[in-house]
Amino acid sequence: DRTPLPDGLDARLRDHLTFLIEVDKLKTVLRASPLAAADRRENDAEHSWHLALMVMVLAEYADEPIDVGHTIKLVVVHDLVEIYAGDTPIYDTEAGVTQVEREEAAAERLFGLLPADAGVALRALWDEFEARETPEARFAKAMDRLQPLLLNWMAQGGTWRTPGVTADDVRARKAVIGEASKALWDAGRHLIDEGERRGWARQV
Amino acid sequence: DRTPLPDGLDARLRDHLTFLIEVDKLKTVLRASPLAAADRRENDAEHSWHLALMVMVLAEYADEPIDVGHTIKLVVVHDLVEIYAGDTPIYDTEAGVTQVEREEAAAERLFGLLPADAGVALRALWDEFEARETPEARFAKAMDRLQPLLLNWMAQGGTWRTPGVTADDVRARKAVIGEASKALWDAGRHLIDEGERRGWARQV
Ligand SMILES: [Ca+2]
Repeated sequence: DRTPLPDGLDARLRDHLTFLIEVDKLKTVLRASPLAAADRRENDAEHSWHLALMVMVLAEYADEPIDVGHTIKLVVVHDLVEIYAGDTPIYDTEAGVTQVEREEAAAERLFGLLPADAGVALRALWDEFEARETPEARFAKAMDRLQPLLLNWMAQGGTWRTPGVTADDVRARKAVIGEASKALWDAGRHLIDEGERRGWARQV
Repeated sequence: DRTPLPDGLDARLRDHLTFLIEVDKLKTVLRASPLAAADRRENDAEHSWHLALMVMVLAEYADEPIDVGHTIKLVVVHDLVEIYAGDTPIYDTEAGVTQVEREEAAAERLFGLLPADAGVALRALWDEFEARETPEARFAKAMDRLQPLLLNWMAQGGTWRTPGVTADDVRARKAVIGEASKALWDAGRHLIDEGERRGWARQV
């Protein structure tokens, strides 16, 4: 029962607040993507905020009706486990092998800080995001793939220039956008095609 | 009509995406508060994400029923105008004088990047947050005041140590938490009282 908070708080609220202080660490988990607005890499908290705003702005392009508020909840929690498991870059196939078990252990530890019912509720949102079986989860995942695509466009390639990665690899990893929105995947593919034409992504 | 995006995109979608690239700048707007998890100041995008998660976790303490999804939307957009208007630190009374007009001009410019209907919709959320006339806006505002209070607690004072600021000033600025939740304001006041006792905030 470790908390940085003083005695004298209601026990349930103290656990809620202890969790909310612990998640500050998401701001220190760096992603591979460069920001568009500054010369540094993005962190997971900024990324998650960006996805939340994208859900609000782009919901009209969803091919299936989505509950916008619920979809935002999915993106707000979707990277929390990376506080302990770290970010697994999309083009890093080695890290991908151990990702599931690392993130499972992280979820146990992180959501375990909360009162049990609250931990179960947040964990259920993360599971829903990962399973991609609801329209909201598919749209949330599409945002998670479209956002770095926009940042890579702004960086004239960004992680598309990762050694060994081709424009076809990028298209393959991003195609999941099309499971949520044909219009957004048309736009995403157009950016990748145009990036390839400009030499920002390799042809072979 | 300036966009960093290439020709060949649907015009409405291009405007949506241009806005979503412009808002990347929120990640470069620094606040006065120090992070709990790293030795640097927080930026507005990270802060907005943190508030979104706080809404989800702390909604049960709202004294009036709130629509959680709608409240999250309010916190996601609440600082966007600072992209052009800058952050106005809570204890900086000089900057406070020009804040309203600076933020109004920023709103015109930023939301004007969007298709008109989308700009009006986001602008309405910002107006709702600022007016604090709905239970959701009051709860969103409470999160906006409680979150740096937690960070200042973790920093053993943080901005409470701003020259000229006393523990009573801190209590006065934070009392708005009580308009949304008695339980959260009880906890917030307890942290300020305990901080004062430990010498992290000045008595006079
Ligand atoms: Ca991720």
